[in-house]
Amino acid sequence: MKILLDTLGADKGYEVVVEGGLKALENHPKLEITFIGVEEDINKVKTEFKDSKRISIIDTAEFISNDEEPALAIRRRKNSSMHLGFKKLNEEEYDGFMSCGSTGALLAGATLITKRLDKISRGALTVVMPSKTGYVLLVDAGANMDCSKELLCQFAIMGNVYSKEVLGNKNPRIGLLSVGAEDNKGDSLRKETFGLLKEMDLNFIGNIEGRDALTGDVDVIVSDGFSGNVLLKSIEGTAILLTDILKDSINSSFRNKLGALLMKPALYSLKNSLDYNEVGAAPLLGVKKAVFKAHGSSNARAIEKGIDKLIQFVEKDVIKKIEKNL
Amino acid sequence: MKILLDTLGADKGYEVVVEGGLKALENHPKLEITFIGVEEDINKVKTEFKDSKRISIIDTAEFISNDEEPALAIRRRKNSSMHLGFKKLNEEEYDGFMSCGSTGALLAGATLITKRLDKISRGALTVVMPSKTGYVLLVDAGANMDCSKELLCQFAIMGNVYSKEVLGNKNPRIGLLSVGAEDNKGDSLRKETFGLLKEMDLNFIGNIEGRDALTGDVDVIVSDGFSGNVLLKSIEGTAILLTDILKDSINSSFRNKLGALLMKPALYSLKNSLDYNEVGAAPLLGVKKAVFKAHGSSNARAIEKGIDKLIQFVEKDVIKKIEKNL
Repeated sequence: MKILLDTLGADKGYEVVVEGGLKALENHPKLEITFIGVEEDINKVKTEFKDSKRISIIDTAEFISNDEEPALAIRRRKNSSMHLGFKKLNEEEYDGFMSCGSTGALLAGATLITKRLDKISRGALTVVMPSKTGYVLLVDAGANMDCSKELLCQFAIMGNVYSKEVLGNKNPRIGLLSVGAEDNKGDSLRKETFGLLKEMDLNFIGNIEGRDALTGDVDVIVSDGFSGNVLLKSIEGTAILLTDILKDSINSSFRNKLGALLMKPALYSLKNSLDYNEVGAAPLLGVKKAVFKAHGSSNARAIEKGIDKLIQFVEKDVIKKIEKNL
Repeated sequence: MKILLDTLGADKGYEVVVEGGLKALENHPKLEITFIGVEEDINKVKTEFKDSKRISIIDTAEFISNDEEPALAIRRRKNSSMHLGFKKLNEEEYDGFMSCGSTGALLAGATLITKRLDKISRGALTVVMPSKTGYVLLVDAGANMDCSKELLCQFAIMGNVYSKEVLGNKNPRIGLLSVGAEDNKGDSLRKETFGLLKEMDLNFIGNIEGRDALTGDVDVIVSDGFSGNVLLKSIEGTAILLTDILKDSINSSFRNKLGALLMKPALYSLKNSLDYNEVGAAPLLGVKKAVFKAHGSSNARAIEKGIDKLIQFVEKDVIKKIEKNL
C-alpha cells in the first residue's frame, strides 16, 4: 500500500500532518507514505522514525489556498503540493492521496486529473459526522450545487457501498434530506428522487429532516451539495455557538468555574461527541482512485484515523464495488 | 386592536394559550381577544380575569392536525378552529390571527382565505431564531419549496420591513443563505439572486453560510423554503442533541451532579439562549392581514410575547410598508 500525503495547507501546520502519517506507518507495517511538502520541515519531524525506507518526500513549498479559483489553480500551479499529488497518483503504484488543503482544488484535481468513473456524471464530496450513537455519512457535502435526480441516486449508491465497506454498517439506512418525514415532502427534485430511490436495491428509509441528521437513525444522508452544505455548516455553527456560550458563562464566576471542574467528565464527553478528529477524513466518491479530504483543522489523530479509512477503502475495493453497483 | 387566538393544536394544551392571551390583555389595555376553542375549557382558565368585556369566544372542539393535507383540510373542515379564525379575520374589525397549530394549514388558510398581497407571488413563512447577540429572521422557513430569484427578492423586501419595524433593527443586514461568503458561491438560483439583491435598495451584506446564521452578524436570512427549513431544523436538532448529551452525562455520576448544581447559572444561560419561547411567534409575510405562527410547543410566555409582536406588526402598518416597497 503506497499513499500520498499532502502536508501543506493544514490549519495547524505541517507538523500534525507528518506526525499523523508517522503514526499510521507505525500502525500499518506494509504502508508506505510519500509526504508532499517542504523536505527540510518533514525531515525535522521524522528524525526519530526508524523504518525510513517506507517514507519518501516530494519537495515543494507551494500550495493552493482556499481563496484561489480551484479549477484554474489546479491546472496552472504545477508545482503546488496538490497538483504534484494528483500527478503522482495517476502512476500505477500509488493507491491513494489525502490532503487537508482547499476542498475546491481537491475536487477539481480529482475530476480533471484523476478522472471520474465512467458511469458517474459528477464526483461527490462526503463528510462523516458524529451522531448520537455513532457516525453518519453525508453525500454530497458541497461539491455539486445543481443536481439532477439521477445524480442523487448515484450518491445513494456510492454512499451505500462506502458506509457498508468502510464504516461498518451491514445494511446502511439511506435517507433523503428533505423538509419532513412524509413521502410527499420536499421540492420537485426531492419528490422525483424519492420515487427512484424507492425502486432501487437499497435500504431506503425515506425522507429525513435536518433534525434527524444526528439522532443515529440514519447511516447515509443523500443530498444535493447546496442543502448538504447548509446542513453541515449549520450543525457546525450551532455546536460552536453553544460551546462558546457555555465557555463564556463558565468563565463568568468562581462558582461556575468550580462547577465546571467537577463536571469535567460531562463536559469532556460533550466535547468528544463533537470531535471531528475521531472521524479522520472522508473520500471524494466517483473518481478512479482513493482521494481523501481531511478537515482543514485536523490534528495528528485525525490524519492517523483518516489514513485508516483510506487503507480500508483501498483494501475493500470500494471503487470496484461502486462500479459494479452502478 | 382586536385579534383572534386559536387555542387548539398546541403541544402543551389550550391552557398555556389562554394564559398567554390573558397576560397579553393585561399588558395591552386596548387589546381585545377572541379565543377560538372549547368554550367551557377557556372559561375555566379565564375565571379570574376581571375585564371580561375584552374577551369573546368562538366555540369549537375541532382542529386541523399536522397529518392532514393542509389545503384540503382548510377548505373542507369549516368548523375547525383555523378555518373559523381565517373566516372571522376577513371581517373588517379583526386585526390579526395567531395559532400554534399546523403550519401547513395556516399557510393554506392565509393564501386561500386571507389572500396574498397583489404584488406578491407567494407568501413566506418566517421564523425568528435566537442568535449569539440577539435575534435573526429567517425568510422563508419552509413554505415555498421551489423558488425563483424574483421570489427570493420579495422575501428580502418583506424581511427587511419586518426586521426594521418590529424587531428593532434600524438598517437590517440582509444575507443570502449560500455555501460560502464569496460573491460567486452557490447554485444557479443563488448566483442569479445575488446580482438582483445587490442592485436593490437594501443593506445587502452578501452570501452567508449555515455557520454564520447564529453569530449575530446578520439580521435577515433570505432563503428558499427548502434550504431554509434544512437550516432551521439542523440548528434545532443540534441544540437538542447537545443538551441531551450534557444531561445524560450530568446524570451519570454524583460528581457531575454536584458540578451541575454549582454551574446552574451557566447551564441556565445556555438553556435561555436556546429558548424559542422568548421569541414568541413570527408572521406569514405577503398576505393581506397579520397572520402569526407560534411554535407548536409554545408556553404561555411565548404566546404573550407573540401577541406583542403581532400588535407591533399592526400598529407599525407593516403590510402597507411592504406594499410600498415592492
